[in-house]
Amino acid sequence: MINRLVDRIRETGAPIVVGLDPMLSYIPEQVLAKAFSEYGETLEGAAQAIWEFNKGIIDNTCDLIPAVKPQIAMYEQFGVEGLKAFEKTVKYCKEKGLVVIGDVKRGDIGSTSAAYAAAHLGKVTVGTNRIAAFDEDFATVNPYLGSDGVKPFVKVCQEEKKGIFVLVKTSNPSSGEFQDRLIDGRPLYEHVGEKVAQWGEECMGDSYSYVGAVVGATYPEMGKILRKIMPKAYILVPGYGAQGGKGADLIHFFDEDGLGAIVNSSRGIIAAWQQEKYGKYGPEHFGEASRAAVLDMREDIAEALENR
Amino acid sequence: MINRLVDRIRETGAPIVVGLDPMLSYIPEQVLAKAFSEYGETLEGAAQAIWEFNKGIIDNTCDLIPAVKPQIAMYEQFGVEGLKAFEKTVKYCKEKGLVVIGDVKRGDIGSTSAAYAAAHLGKVTVGTNRIAAFDEDFATVNPYLGSDGVKPFVKVCQEEKKGIFVLVKTSNPSSGEFQDRLIDGRPLYEHVGEKVAQWGEECMGDSYSYVGAVVGATYPEMGKILRKIMPKAYILVPGYGAQGGKGADLIHFFDEDGLGAIVNSSRGIIAAWQQEKYGKYGPEHFGEASRAAVLDMREDIAEALENR
Repeated sequence: MINRLVDRIRETGAPIVVGLDPMLSYIPEQVLAKAFSEYGETLEGAAQAIWEFNKGIIDNTCDLIPAVKPQIAMYEQFGVEGLKAFEKTVKYCKEKGLVVIGDVKRGDIGSTSAAYAAAHLGKVTVGTNRIAAFDEDFATVNPYLGSDGVKPFVKVCQEEKKGIFVLVKTSNPSSGEFQDRLIDGRPLYEHVGEKVAQWGEECMGDSYSYVGAVVGATYPEMGKILRKIMPKAYILVPGYGAQGGKGADLIHFFDEDGLGAIVNSSRGIIAAWQQEKYGKYGPEHFGEASRAAVLDMREDIAEALENR
Repeated sequence: MINRLVDRIRETGAPIVVGLDPMLSYIPEQVLAKAFSEYGETLEGAAQAIWEFNKGIIDNTCDLIPAVKPQIAMYEQFGVEGLKAFEKTVKYCKEKGLVVIGDVKRGDIGSTSAAYAAAHLGKVTVGTNRIAAFDEDFATVNPYLGSDGVKPFVKVCQEEKKGIFVLVKTSNPSSGEFQDRLIDGRPLYEHVGEKVAQWGEECMGDSYSYVGAVVGATYPEMGKILRKIMPKAYILVPGYGAQGGKGADLIHFFDEDGLGAIVNSSRGIIAAWQQEKYGKYGPEHFGEASRAAVLDMREDIAEALENR
């Protein structure tokens, strides 16, 4: 799957992943009204609105981008109905040829991590059947529990040719509270980065490992160091756009050839229609506003990479 | 909710939480056969078997114990159908008067943690309605992202009078890989423990905080230190039984009055019927085997606390 992701990035020239993290406040009134009129102001109604909104964005951007990253929390808050919308979104994106990164940040002790790995990347055995549940292509994984929390995911990656991105240095303001603390003179995130490189040795694609890392765009200098510590890890970079990361901040995450990193934008793309810059599209053409935002982001990154 | 948990522990004399982590391999053949004959060897069939199995255990133990802890990964691996069984289990346990600890180990950046907190402890706004999704009483939370990943949960705890248990020192063999690393001369888990104490100050129940901690039974000496670092935090202790923790290991997690800790056992209780010790019950009386195992566990802990 890492090979396919790299191929898709090459084809599109866009090291971009669109974060499908729909808040109801991002969804235009006409989409909400239609869903609520059909299903009421219920969890089902919310899930329907989310699904219609996602579809509008996917249909308008899928030819431009290699991948999407639905954030499962935004679906889970609507319970089972929300998770149906998550499942439907994953399936639809895969039909459209997109690589799907499930932003699930799971991680637990061995047998439980194995269940999460089965839920999101693998298959579960029921009687004589092997059945996939959510079936994303990649998942994000929390490393706090150590190797025996991560390795069950690595095993499924090997079996199913899928991938993970392990949280190394997250984009949020207080990520440093534990991640930056010095251990033997070096911050915790560097130690985690070293482990990511080790875990990744066990499952290499053509140029990059199935085991990637999450490093926030908001910490470019740390990205520079981590790029070297994990030379074979693809870096998933959240925090661009709404969280404050800029194109110029991103260059250190990439290798010389412009590969090695994929940058996420969520609100900046999916709620583009709410920005003054894309206001001309109006709420009824929210998908086209997202398309324009993707094109601008592609240009911003390309420019930054050219000028480095 | 922490007050209710403490009351229930006092009433039952059992600082025990039963981990409802059903693997299909724990479920007696007759339960599987019935579910599969009705729904096929499908995700739905698996979910039905899990639900029937859980019900058998809950019905046979609910008068003895204060709380249950369903591990969501074991449901999530069966997709939406599995999560319906999770939802149904949570609801049924609450009807039976049990405190429900959702072992979800969620944690993300601010707005995303807020969505997880809404999903598991709070309510979500849909139009003019406020609706609860999974609605557990407590949830487990991963601290790797720092305060702004945890505080949205604390906020919901304050609003809804619910609680969290933050992962401090997990029970698995490689938990030390990052958690034990020394920062300013003290292991990371102690620093996390200090934060738990701080976060907890903002939402106190009568004697304990709404913010508790997870510390594995497999690390009793660390439990002793953490008990002092977090004097107001209830400690959820996994790792008893199948993972190797014994009654005598547990004493350090408790306060002088026998409160302050609640010990989880999953396989040791729910798959008791598969142990030689409880073999006499047979697979058809698996719930009674679980009941016997709870009684033995209660005695084991009581004895350890008396003899300290």
